[in-house]
Amino acid sequence: MTGRRRGRPRSSESADRRAAILASARTAFAARGFQGTTVRAVAADAGVDPSLVAHYFGSKERLFVATMELPVDPAAKLAGVIAEGPQGLGERLVRTFVSSWDPHREVIAALLRGAVSGSEASPPVVEMAREVLVAAIHSALEGERRELRAELVAAQVIGLGMARYVAAFEPLASSPVEDVVAAYAPAVQSLIDG
Amino acid sequence: MTGRRRGRPRSSESADRRAAILASARTAFAARGFQGTTVRAVAADAGVDPSLVAHYFGSKERLFVATMELPVDPAAKLAGVIAEGPQGLGERLVRTFVSSWDPHREVIAALLRGAVSGSEASPPVVEMAREVLVAAIHSALEGERRELRAELVAAQVIGLGMARYVAAFEPLASSPVEDVVAAYAPAVQSLIDG
Repeated sequence: MTGRRRGRPRSSESADRRAAILASARTAFAARGFQGTTVRAVAADAGVDPSLVAHYFGSKERLFVATMELPVDPAAKLAGVIAEGPQGLGERLVRTFVSSWDPHREVIAALLRGAVSGSEASPPVVEMAREVLVAAIHSALEGERRELRAELVAAQVIGLGMARYVAAFEPLASSPVEDVVAAYAPAVQSLIDG
Repeated sequence: MTGRRRGRPRSSESADRRAAILASARTAFAARGFQGTTVRAVAADAGVDPSLVAHYFGSKERLFVATMELPVDPAAKLAGVIAEGPQGLGERLVRTFVSSWDPHREVIAALLRGAVSGSEASPPVVEMAREVLVAAIHSALEGERRELRAELVAAQVIGLGMARYVAAFEPLASSPVEDVVAAYAPAVQSLIDG
C-alpha cells in the first residue's frame, strides 16, 4: 500500500488501482498472450508497483482469471452451476461459458489461439480446463466412464471457444447466446447423461 | 524433374523423393508449425529442388495434408463418410478423425497448439475445418439451423483434437479409438439430428 495518497477514501482509491491493473492486463494478454505478458509490464502500464498486482491478484494466473470477469472465480462459478444437478447442466454450462467469454472475445481468442507461441505447454485456457472444468464436471457425472465423459465435455467447451472466437465461424460467431445454447446444449447434455 | 538419375526406374525414384519430402515436411511442421515452415526449407532438407515439392504436392497446404496421410484428401474422405447418409454419421466422423490423426499426434498437436505463434490468423487446422469440414457437414444436414449446427459439429471435432492431442487429458488421450467413438459419437450425432 505504499504511495497511497492521503485524504482520499481507501476503498475508492483501491478500486481505481485495481481497475487500472485489470485494464492494462486485458490489453497485454490480448496483444502478447499469456506467456508473453509479465506482471511487471502490466504494473508499469497501470502506473503501480508490481507488488500491488500481487497484493490484489496473487499470481499472473489469477490476474488472467480476473480479466475475464468470471464471477468470483471459475471453480466457484462452476460449483454453483453444477450444484443444481445434472439435469439441464449442459444448458447451464454453455450459457455460463458463452456469456462469460463474449465480453472478452479478443482475450479469449488470443489465449486459445497462440498464446504459447510454439512452446511445449498447453494454452493456459486449456490448463484451466484441465484443472477446473474437468474436475468440476466429473463431480457431477454418474454412470460409467465418468472421467472420459468429463474430458469430452471439456473438449466440447474448448471446441466451442475455438469455433466462436478463434475460427469465428459464421453464423456461429455472431449468433445470440441463447441460439448457441439451444443448438449446442443437447449435445453437451448427451455426454452428461452418458 | 531435373536431376533424376538415369537407369533407375522412374516410379521407384519418384516414390523415394516423395517420401523424403514428406519425412522432411513432417519434421518441419512438428518443430516449427505451419507458418514457420517453408517449402524451400523442406526441399533443402529432403535434398530436392523446391519445384519438385510443388510438382508433387502443389502447395504448402496440400503438403501439410499429405503429411497427415489422410487417404486421398480430407474433402474426398469426408465426402465418402457423408455419402453414407446422416444415420451413424457422428460415429463415422469421430472414428475417421481419430484414426487419421492418431498416427500423427505430434503434428496435429503442434498445428492445433501454436502453429500461428501470436499472429492474427487461425491455425491451419482451423482454416481447414472451416473450408472442408463445415462445408461437408453442412451438405449432410437436414432441418433447421444447418449452418450453425455444422459449425458446432466442427467445434466438437476441433475440441476433441485439442483435448486428445494438445491438452492430452487422461484417460482421453490414451483411450482406444473405439472407446472415444462410443463415448463421443452420440453427442456429435445429436447435433447432426438437430
